[in-house]
Amino acid sequence: MGGFILIDKFTNATVAAGMLHFALRRADNVHWQAVDVTRSVRARAKGQKAALVWFTGLSGAGKSTVANLVEKRLFDQGFHTYLLDGDNVRHGLNKDLGFTAADRVENVRRVAEVARLMVDSGLIVLASFISPFKAERQMARELVGESEFVEVFVDAPLSVAESRDRKGLYAKARRGDLVNFTGVDSPYEAPESPDVHLDASGGITPEAAADLVILHLREAGILQPGTGV
Amino acid sequence: MGGFILIDKFTNATVAAGMLHFALRRADNVHWQAVDVTRSVRARAKGQKAALVWFTGLSGAGKSTVANLVEKRLFDQGFHTYLLDGDNVRHGLNKDLGFTAADRVENVRRVAEVARLMVDSGLIVLASFISPFKAERQMARELVGESEFVEVFVDAPLSVAESRDRKGLYAKARRGDLVNFTGVDSPYEAPESPDVHLDASGGITPEAAADLVILHLREAGILQPGTGV
Repeated sequence: MGGFILIDKFTNATVAAGMLHFALRRADNVHWQAVDVTRSVRARAKGQKAALVWFTGLSGAGKSTVANLVEKRLFDQGFHTYLLDGDNVRHGLNKDLGFTAADRVENVRRVAEVARLMVDSGLIVLASFISPFKAERQMARELVGESEFVEVFVDAPLSVAESRDRKGLYAKARRGDLVNFTGVDSPYEAPESPDVHLDASGGITPEAAADLVILHLREAGILQPGTGV
Repeated sequence: MGGFILIDKFTNATVAAGMLHFALRRADNVHWQAVDVTRSVRARAKGQKAALVWFTGLSGAGKSTVANLVEKRLFDQGFHTYLLDGDNVRHGLNKDLGFTAADRVENVRRVAEVARLMVDSGLIVLASFISPFKAERQMARELVGESEFVEVFVDAPLSVAESRDRKGLYAKARRGDLVNFTGVDSPYEAPESPDVHLDASGGITPEAAADLVILHLREAGILQPGTGV
């Protein structure tokens, strides 16, 4: 309890005055039972609303690039995030799965279940998966909850995505060495009304794309005002 | 930049004065590329060292009770935690698994993989699973990393655990309606040198048990001094 006056270091002018109403940290003797640790309590303690931000699009469309940019910026602004992608899931949790139709569905199901646990822990989870089928994205949305799910469509034409082909996957698929490859011999079902539509054909930079995603998260109330920037 | 003076709200006495040196939050224009978002960076931003705290013991030994107490206290002290247990895993991620030997191993493997992702996100993860076999606990330890794994043995005699039997599982197993039940027709391999040994036969209260776990986490450097209480 107390008032305060702010004084400019250089001019010694009084620039502001105010009143302290409460301490931001709890006292040592507050009893733990007061807190019921739920999703919203956890998220509030982190100054955010937990959410799953799902990046979908062709291989090579730029999903991971944009998701990484978004994560770095959010982290830098003090938010609590985690990026789930093929790299940290296919080599661990889902290493028993292949690329048959059944295994692809199971792959996305487990990712969505893990994302649900992480959202439950209060994190903003970014997931970057081709996820070509409407049904699987819908499953993820339903598992996590409609109000916590943000669909980001990284929309590059096949010609652009294929021309990048950094991992050589399109070439492999065209040769027939890789089957069920999205865009080649397996369809990509574009989202009809994604929460964020990044039109990568128009020459948008990854930085500008990340800005659009963050703008949406801010407008959707996921990034709490007063936290971060 | 500026000085400040604290004034008692009720007496109007000046109780303190000081100087602001820097803002606690980063400015908007700090460039994101400066931050490489790794496990240790994420954890440090949360004022803690990420870890997996694994509670093992018989059904009815009190694992979940103690793990819940530990989580509530840590959360209340400002740490970032998540509790993984049968309730949030068996009904979601692992709902396709039964209780055969193979499925039990797969159950623990997935839990450990999810814990690894969560530890990677900087959280202190509490996992509460009977996990009767040394080999499965060793798998979890190796997946997450030796230095991030804390084994807590909730050690209640079978007679005590069975006498509680809140879920009626021991009765079911004794009738033969439940097979492969740990302590009845499936062995429990006690940890030889757990990081924390909670001897529930000596009448230790859940509160005292939680204290011991937190003491260990503090001594192990997982709870950073200066954060929380």
